[in-house]
Amino acid sequence: MKKIINDVDRVIVETLEGMAAAHPELKVNIDPHYIVRAHKGNKVAVISGGGSGHEPLHGGFVGTGMLDGACPGEMFTSPTPDQMYECAKVAESGKGVLFLVKNYTGDVMNFETAVELVAGENIAVQAILVDDDVAVKDSLYTAGRRGVGLTVLMEKIVGAAAEAGCDLDTCASLARKVNLNGRSLGMALTSCTVPAAGKPTFQLADDEMEIGIGIHGEPGIKRMPFKRADEITEILTTTILDDKGYSRTLREWDRGAGDWVEKTLVDKDFNEGDEMIVLVNSMGGTPLSELYVVYRKLAEICKGRKIKIVRSLVGPYITSLEMQGFSITLLKADAEILQYWDAPVRTPGLQLG
Amino acid sequence: MKKIINDVDRVIVETLEGMAAAHPELKVNIDPHYIVRAHKGNKVAVISGGGSGHEPLHGGFVGTGMLDGACPGEMFTSPTPDQMYECAKVAESGKGVLFLVKNYTGDVMNFETAVELVAGENIAVQAILVDDDVAVKDSLYTAGRRGVGLTVLMEKIVGAAAEAGCDLDTCASLARKVNLNGRSLGMALTSCTVPAAGKPTFQLADDEMEIGIGIHGEPGIKRMPFKRADEITEILTTTILDDKGYSRTLREWDRGAGDWVEKTLVDKDFNEGDEMIVLVNSMGGTPLSELYVVYRKLAEICKGRKIKIVRSLVGPYITSLEMQGFSITLLKADAEILQYWDAPVRTPGLQLG
Repeated sequence: MKKIINDVDRVIVETLEGMAAAHPELKVNIDPHYIVRAHKGNKVAVISGGGSGHEPLHGGFVGTGMLDGACPGEMFTSPTPDQMYECAKVAESGKGVLFLVKNYTGDVMNFETAVELVAGENIAVQAILVDDDVAVKDSLYTAGRRGVGLTVLMEKIVGAAAEAGCDLDTCASLARKVNLNGRSLGMALTSCTVPAAGKPTFQLADDEMEIGIGIHGEPGIKRMPFKRADEITEILTTTILDDKGYSRTLREWDRGAGDWVEKTLVDKDFNEGDEMIVLVNSMGGTPLSELYVVYRKLAEICKGRKIKIVRSLVGPYITSLEMQGFSITLLKADAEILQYWDAPVRTPGLQLG
Repeated sequence: MKKIINDVDRVIVETLEGMAAAHPELKVNIDPHYIVRAHKGNKVAVISGGGSGHEPLHGGFVGTGMLDGACPGEMFTSPTPDQMYECAKVAESGKGVLFLVKNYTGDVMNFETAVELVAGENIAVQAILVDDDVAVKDSLYTAGRRGVGLTVLMEKIVGAAAEAGCDLDTCASLARKVNLNGRSLGMALTSCTVPAAGKPTFQLADDEMEIGIGIHGEPGIKRMPFKRADEITEILTTTILDDKGYSRTLREWDRGAGDWVEKTLVDKDFNEGDEMIVLVNSMGGTPLSELYVVYRKLAEICKGRKIKIVRSLVGPYITSLEMQGFSITLLKADAEILQYWDAPVRTPGLQLG
């Protein structure tokens, strides 16, 4: 294993120390790990977190117009409830806390505990799940669908709404809408190597690829012989566009009752005439030039289906260390979503407007 | 070779088609290849270019506050004079054309021809070279030092000056100052694969790294056993900081005489008390987390030497396809350089301010 690191056990800490040195606009706490803005706003605190190894997600998205806080776990491992609780306590300003949570078993469990801890302090709190990966339902790490690329778009859009002064319920509703309006699918050409493991998470032969890979290298829909970019893009795009009516029951916090309630939520279908925000995302090791080759075909398919791409993002935003591969995320936009997409954002990992 | 491409011969064209689809604010011309802003300004036209494979450099840096045009060559191959000439004709608005040129033999020769073609149309034109790589003097692709990471900073700073209305001579002087105030050094853990070649450009053993690697995989200072991040960072940083008094003779265009003149230019030394803009750049396949591990040590070394980092950029800005490795660039900043660094920039590959 060749990586630009010192000790396997200190990768996360040293990454955070580097972020602190490079970004004086952030406050990076080492014990427990969390990242908040150096100057907190008087607003709903939007906080996310998850395993490390997906940078710039989430810590790189802390800043004006996006997150107020991020909790990085160990590599590909959920952060702990105390990280989330401490982060929330530091970031909140009396307007409440909204956790945006990728749907992995560990993340969900720990964020639920954090919600209860925060609520116990009489702070208004909500947690909204993102489960946008159409690849698999139930997997090694998940009950239901996994949270992947849509997380980036949700953090941007909900972050903008909070920045604009929307209250906790409005921000939570918007996050829920983004989740139901967006879907993703990824693929990999190679594995990645978690430093502590010291060897690739999985093996793909020289003529193989995997469709539907997870951002931790979890198995996807299927392995198949390596194909041309246009064919791969067609598989991903049409699978996303044709995915209809996904229904799931998710838990949300009922502040009045002080308990969890189950909500059945159904995805919005994609149809002719829809306007989309799209993300073509590198898994880490795929060059930008190849992402544009994908974008070219994606734009052509959408045009053929009379779907209009109104905004786009192309680059490495939710990665899997140095994995080669990419993912596509499509988000059906309405006026509210577009308004907050177009609001300025200033973070280390994303600057727009 | 597994890459997200269709035909080896169409990678550049399809990348450009994807860029055109994703970025309506750009005008992407396919024959010959060049990228300009969709709405040109009434200003000095700042144009760069070079081999493809280093994305987002240069095409991703076309936009408000940075470049007016970029000419992508074939993979790792200089663009041709007709690309540069056509691009300049489209981008210029009567205030003249400034070419920013990385010091590679092919680039220099072709940009010199382009200068003569543009001058032949009675358009004021200048070309400033960037030769910041302290690794090697004279190499496979270069007479003198190669142009690497400093190019990104030069395009940002000179682009801001042109945006602010500075005239051609002022922009050229600023570019020259940036070149003499900045130096870079890179390293690689792995090679990359040029699509047309179909196999890695070079081989590094599992326990080897190469210090001073070029952005096309050209040989560097030396191969050595793989080391810890702190040791690698120390080698690169101290080599850059201790590099003193590099002198070279470069050709610049004399508009009055309509001919080339030779100028002997000497780098400014780095000293205690200097303020620096730093770039920690991924060669493509190295994750952001590892770049921050590097940044952490770089900041520590600079602090120990009483050198103050006043601005920084961490990420993949001048890449070598999927090569794993990184480079460090240090640029001594003065008030003029900082003023233009802090000006807003809105391009696909870099947004600040």
